[in-house]
Amino acid sequence: MTIFASRRGLLKLGGAASLGLVANPAVAAPSTERKLGYAIVGLGQYADVILPRFAECRYSRVTALVSGSMEKARRYAARYDVAEAGLYTYDTFDTIRDNPDVDIVYVILPNGMHHEYTLRAAAAGKHVMCEKPMANTAAEAQAMIAACRAADRKLMIGYRCHFEANNREAMRIVREGELGKARIVTAEHGFNIGDPTQWRLNRALAGGGSLMDIGIYSLQAARYLTGEEPVEVSAVESTDRSDIRFKEVEDTINFQLKFASGVVANCVSTYGSGHNRYRVVGTEGWLDAEAATGYGGNRLRLRRNGQTADHPAPDLPVNQFSGMLDHLSQCVMTDSQPIVAGEEGLRDMKIIEAIYLAAREGRTVRL
Amino acid sequence: MTIFASRRGLLKLGGAASLGLVANPAVAAPSTERKLGYAIVGLGQYADVILPRFAECRYSRVTALVSGSMEKARRYAARYDVAEAGLYTYDTFDTIRDNPDVDIVYVILPNGMHHEYTLRAAAAGKHVMCEKPMANTAAEAQAMIAACRAADRKLMIGYRCHFEANNREAMRIVREGELGKARIVTAEHGFNIGDPTQWRLNRALAGGGSLMDIGIYSLQAARYLTGEEPVEVSAVESTDRSDIRFKEVEDTINFQLKFASGVVANCVSTYGSGHNRYRVVGTEGWLDAEAATGYGGNRLRLRRNGQTADHPAPDLPVNQFSGMLDHLSQCVMTDSQPIVAGEEGLRDMKIIEAIYLAAREGRTVRL
Repeated sequence: MTIFASRRGLLKLGGAASLGLVANPAVAAPSTERKLGYAIVGLGQYADVILPRFAECRYSRVTALVSGSMEKARRYAARYDVAEAGLYTYDTFDTIRDNPDVDIVYVILPNGMHHEYTLRAAAAGKHVMCEKPMANTAAEAQAMIAACRAADRKLMIGYRCHFEANNREAMRIVREGELGKARIVTAEHGFNIGDPTQWRLNRALAGGGSLMDIGIYSLQAARYLTGEEPVEVSAVESTDRSDIRFKEVEDTINFQLKFASGVVANCVSTYGSGHNRYRVVGTEGWLDAEAATGYGGNRLRLRRNGQTADHPAPDLPVNQFSGMLDHLSQCVMTDSQPIVAGEEGLRDMKIIEAIYLAAREGRTVRL
Repeated sequence: MTIFASRRGLLKLGGAASLGLVANPAVAAPSTERKLGYAIVGLGQYADVILPRFAECRYSRVTALVSGSMEKARRYAARYDVAEAGLYTYDTFDTIRDNPDVDIVYVILPNGMHHEYTLRAAAAGKHVMCEKPMANTAAEAQAMIAACRAADRKLMIGYRCHFEANNREAMRIVREGELGKARIVTAEHGFNIGDPTQWRLNRALAGGGSLMDIGIYSLQAARYLTGEEPVEVSAVESTDRSDIRFKEVEDTINFQLKFASGVVANCVSTYGSGHNRYRVVGTEGWLDAEAATGYGGNRLRLRRNGQTADHPAPDLPVNQFSGMLDHLSQCVMTDSQPIVAGEEGLRDMKIIEAIYLAAREGRTVRL
């Protein structure tokens, strides 16, 4: 049993190796119904999204919580049924090596802490799920991959859209040529960021501004929809530095990607206004989604033969969050490579660095 | 009587001088009901769109036709009730100076001929309506403006969208701040071009590829929606030179514009797939249109307070074509500057040249 591509999908997705859809052909069903134990590191907003989703997991459960505050950890432990022995602070985190109930550490900390906690988790002998962006820099990402490889542990990045029904259907439609030859992608992600004191606006903790946090969805979409890698990037940044929110990081950074096949992508990344959509235009039609990459409520449309219609994706067995959590558990149990492994995160980090360079120097950067 | 902005609009459109909405406050009603005479130069596809629209004009009628074929001219003359004395070939065109029934020459020839026929029309003492793009180059555009100025004749560019109800309503909404502060514009225009022998694919006749013909709508939209001028452009070209259609001109050339206020625009221009839409996103909502700039059937939507709804524009007295034709007649009769005068066409030509330069040299070009 797998939530991934059908046989038909696998046969046709030959060009998509970069996204792991081929590199990870149908992860075999684990031979047991055992649930692997996750330690959640960082009990912030996104942990509040993730934690309830273990209830729908088949191969995953939460067995540990790591927080700066034991009081907070205990409050969450009561809600999610985690034993006192599974509660850690950042100071005691390394002792997690001695906890046999923890198989996987899920790093949901600010970006600037991903590198440290991934390395500490690998050193503790645990597999790692790390939130996106993978790190503040490509160099950190490379070190994280190396550390997990040296420890013989899996490393997966929390790219949930690869487990979401509409996004998977959109990938299939584009890559199977149902739009003819894909030509132009537009992808927009943004929101009007609030509290100026939050970590997302702190360069050391966030690594950058909108591109790191939300623009990365536009970048990912351009890549996973086409199944191709960009060869050139250009970018334009627009940030009002007198806005107290943007003392350290960028607001808007829009970018263009050119792929080897000739496909081009126009992408929006902003912390100033609401955007959540993409469109892929091919020679024989288009698909678009708005919302495209939300936690729920995504909506896909398809235009072919001059007609535009809603195109609900086939159901997947579970929601994107549970599917993502279980995927890593399955990969651990069957010793398979996750479809969004550390290498996938590193690809984004390298492109993100190229986008920043292109904007800073006002030139097209080749990858 | 004017088809233009309401008093409210005029008061609020203070920042929009570049688009002529203020520079040309409500053209006064002509004191007569006389219709000025148009000579249509070039009886191609677009002339077939324009000619029937004189029927709805209040101040304009067609009194002359210019074609390479007198037989074709006579066929059109019969259909549109033009006297034999009003029929010209390109060889006899200059004698139009002696035809008192012709006030305005409408140049609907391939781009590469706009310069020559505008100069000849001005030399013949006629006012000029010239199709977009105004010319092959900014230098030609400047010469056209100078020639019309020296002859004391009006020069207007056929930017019909400035006379179309939805586009005018969109300008009003954005510029009056109904979306909060405008931040990001996306604009896409393209079609899958057919016949490889057509003039649009011939560099000498077209001046360039998709950008000259259809991408100019994305550029125009970014400018007229915001009422601002770009200060920086970057661009990415993608053309399959093995495609017989693109031996001489570009297929896709997507570009980014940055405006002084910080607004940024992501624009698509292509000859390979169908695109006709734009969206303006502000701090308090967005508007979008798809189709955005069609001959008819344009559809505007507005999102505010978390709700998206169709937003039909208030009716204008006449369709965009008749409104455009009558505008120049009114400007001639009242000695007013057209809202889309030659200077507006020149602005686009300068930006177009910057876009080509940016794509060619892989760098941001400042304007």
